[in-house]
Amino acid sequence: MKRLAILIVLILAFACANPQNDTAPLVFQSDFGIKDAAVASMKGVAAGISSDLKIFDLTHEVPSYNVWEAAQRLVQTAEYWPSGTVFVSVVDPGVGTERKSVVLKTESGHYFVTPDNGTLTLIAEKLGIEGVREIDEAVNRRKDSGKSYTFHGRDVYAYTGARLAAGIIGFAEVGQKLENKVVSIPYQKAKFEGNVLYGNIPILDIQYGNVWTNIHRETFNQLGVEHGYEVQVKISQGSSVVLQQTLAYQPTFGKVAVGEPLLYLNSLSQVSLALNQGNFAAKHNIGSGSDWNIEIWR
Amino acid sequence: MKRLAILIVLILAFACANPQNDTAPLVFQSDFGIKDAAVASMKGVAAGISSDLKIFDLTHEVPSYNVWEAAQRLVQTAEYWPSGTVFVSVVDPGVGTERKSVVLKTESGHYFVTPDNGTLTLIAEKLGIEGVREIDEAVNRRKDSGKSYTFHGRDVYAYTGARLAAGIIGFAEVGQKLENKVVSIPYQKAKFEGNVLYGNIPILDIQYGNVWTNIHRETFNQLGVEHGYEVQVKISQGSSVVLQQTLAYQPTFGKVAVGEPLLYLNSLSQVSLALNQGNFAAKHNIGSGSDWNIEIWR
Amino acid sequence: MKRLAILIVLILAFACANPQNDTAPLVFQSDFGIKDAAVASMKGVAAGISSDLKIFDLTHEVPSYNVWEAAQRLVQTAEYWPSGTVFVSVVDPGVGTERKSVVLKTESGHYFVTPDNGTLTLIAEKLGIEGVREIDEAVNRRKDSGKSYTFHGRDVYAYTGARLAAGIIGFAEVGQKLENKVVSIPYQKAKFEGNVLYGNIPILDIQYGNVWTNIHRETFNQLGVEHGYEVQVKISQGSSVVLQQTLAYQPTFGKVAVGEPLLYLNSLSQVSLALNQGNFAAKHNIGSGSDWNIEIWR
Repeated sequence: MKRLAILIVLILAFACANPQNDTAPLVFQSDFGIKDAAVASMKGVAAGISSDLKIFDLTHEVPSYNVWEAAQRLVQTAEYWPSGTVFVSVVDPGVGTERKSVVLKTESGHYFVTPDNGTLTLIAEKLGIEGVREIDEAVNRRKDSGKSYTFHGRDVYAYTGARLAAGIIGFAEVGQKLENKVVSIPYQKAKFEGNVLYGNIPILDIQYGNVWTNIHRETFNQLGVEHGYEVQVKISQGSSVVLQQTLAYQPTFGKVAVGEPLLYLNSLSQVSLALNQGNFAAKHNIGSGSDWNIEIWR
Repeated sequence: MKRLAILIVLILAFACANPQNDTAPLVFQSDFGIKDAAVASMKGVAAGISSDLKIFDLTHEVPSYNVWEAAQRLVQTAEYWPSGTVFVSVVDPGVGTERKSVVLKTESGHYFVTPDNGTLTLIAEKLGIEGVREIDEAVNRRKDSGKSYTFHGRDVYAYTGARLAAGIIGFAEVGQKLENKVVSIPYQKAKFEGNVLYGNIPILDIQYGNVWTNIHRETFNQLGVEHGYEVQVKISQGSSVVLQQTLAYQPTFGKVAVGEPLLYLNSLSQVSLALNQGNFAAKHNIGSGSDWNIEIWR
Repeated sequence: MKRLAILIVLILAFACANPQNDTAPLVFQSDFGIKDAAVASMKGVAAGISSDLKIFDLTHEVPSYNVWEAAQRLVQTAEYWPSGTVFVSVVDPGVGTERKSVVLKTESGHYFVTPDNGTLTLIAEKLGIEGVREIDEAVNRRKDSGKSYTFHGRDVYAYTGARLAAGIIGFAEVGQKLENKVVSIPYQKAKFEGNVLYGNIPILDIQYGNVWTNIHRETFNQLGVEHGYEVQVKISQGSSVVLQQTLAYQPTFGKVAVGEPLLYLNSLSQVSLALNQGNFAAKHNIGSGSDWNIEIWR
């Protein structure tokens, strides 16, 4: 009788184990857009691996082949997702060349499945590298995909990311361990020197036209400016000055009149420029990239 | 032995309780667009609160700061979602000013997490107010978000909406109870007077260029027009007449030739104007907003 | 005592049955765009039918009323989704006319809920017809939707698709069985004749401007061209030649310089033309549709 009871416990405990506890969020990014079926095919492969997966989109509107922007989008959002989340990023101008297909595990416990082409530049710096493995396509590849030359996004990256997120494979089963480094795109770092803040404009807040810089709160604080006080700002593309302006540092948009400029710390705690309910970048023809620089002083 | 059996039942019943039964759909709306990582960060916060949440998008293409359109989108869809659904709407031109962050519970049992800036105008009218509570940011705020000034969407609204949808907090735990009212945007209501229907053009069906009005079936029926019969329509922006036209009331698009106009009741049972497989609004330069009015008579 | 144990087993087995095992992926496609609430309302209806459904988007950016493109998008992705997946496609220029509302079950076990207006042309050819049933709107229609004339997408298609995906109804309960055929759009098939490949350009890879043809690998192989060798290509719209060019057949984009053209097999194993990191279609004014043809010879 007692053995029967124990048997019941074991059988039912097994039956009741919630399979969802084994799955982590799976987040897709690409430059595919959302007008055709490419993104859907990646999700179909993932849905076929486990019906318990929770599948999300970061964005599929990365400009075609823009690896730098792919890197930006990942670093903007990754830390807000739970540890264990698997990101699949497919911006791959070198598809079919010698770039490696890898999975990065960060010290924060997030996974990134992607071609190693610069996409991991900022994530590796910010979240730290716990390990990098090259995807072994002999095992981590959708069945029957041998003849399909060009859609690594679906046949290798989505497939591998989904199996990681579903707990079907662990990190060690991705493939061979590589050195703890990734391909990195060079860019100017933020610094405070001679009473001037130097930084880069890595990306625009395109929806609103706000200008984001890579100068973080901690660096900005070395300037010693209080809310409501003015600073001087100079923006250059390469050697040509595009804008020189005086504006106030404010805690929120609501502190200035509609249409007026402000310097503020955005949701990533980075120095940013905006017009309250206006488009700062369009008004002043500001762009972004490795050759767009900013200087700020009192 | 009997106590053992009871113990087994209790342990397993607890283990087997399906956690999904506790979660409600969580639906996001914003003016963030889908090109950057802002929407993904909101979803990441939600996914971190419960892996069982079912997360959806209403739209993120509300024109920047257009609270009126945010209100329209909510009222168009809310009633088709099950009672208990939690909507998080972040169109927030006044971020950082004195507007309150609230949760509205409607008489239909839906929840709306949003700045109280007019976004709730139409939902409150249509679904009724069961209660309004101000979000207590001391407790309903993402951990470690204290220094992040401007992303209420992620740190307060997504966080609070996800905890409500996951059943971690109830409505009473949102914060202090407020009066049963919300900030409302004034607009012209539909009426039938002196044999003329008066109404407003709150929004266009932008995908097809159909013109939607706020004249509901019940008001329209007072005109006493049968399918296939003609009516006179006048559309004005402020005091200038933009269009005066005769067209027929039809049950479906297929009743008129391709390119021909019709008046019909749309999926929300509201009087609408369209060209069969054409763009009525573009052809006649029709816009929408509080100053766009329509008159209809026989 | 033994009966007690058996009772425990039965009660708990019932309680523990994982309801998710009964649901299949539900995938929406439409020409509604994502700026208003139409797509969200379809999903709300589905979410109200079962909280366990996994709901996905194929695309909602099919050009308005373009049934041919809807057919293309379905055939591009369906086979990558697990058997049992339910697709709801709402591109419906004939809404309100005599076109039938059907569910197609393919031999591969996928379901397609749609107006039978040509949308199923390619899926039926590729995956085979196991059965076609007309939706019985007397039972397969959202409650309280009787007065809503025009939104079949929400009230009939989303409702029926969600109930199929959730296992609430089976295929037989959709409605009356029809003949095993669907409404088909005529188009030129690929063939190899007199040492020339003939084919159609059904669609462009709009994100990158690559030109996709309906010439599959097996047909292409009859030309007997090896990687790295050149072929002649002629593209016509109707009777006018738009492009005549010599280019090389390559396994991957990376085999040619940036900006250079190639002929390759895309992820669907179809002959395609592209510029490495460029827009082939825009450069040469190539379009797509039933009157766009291609010839290829050595």
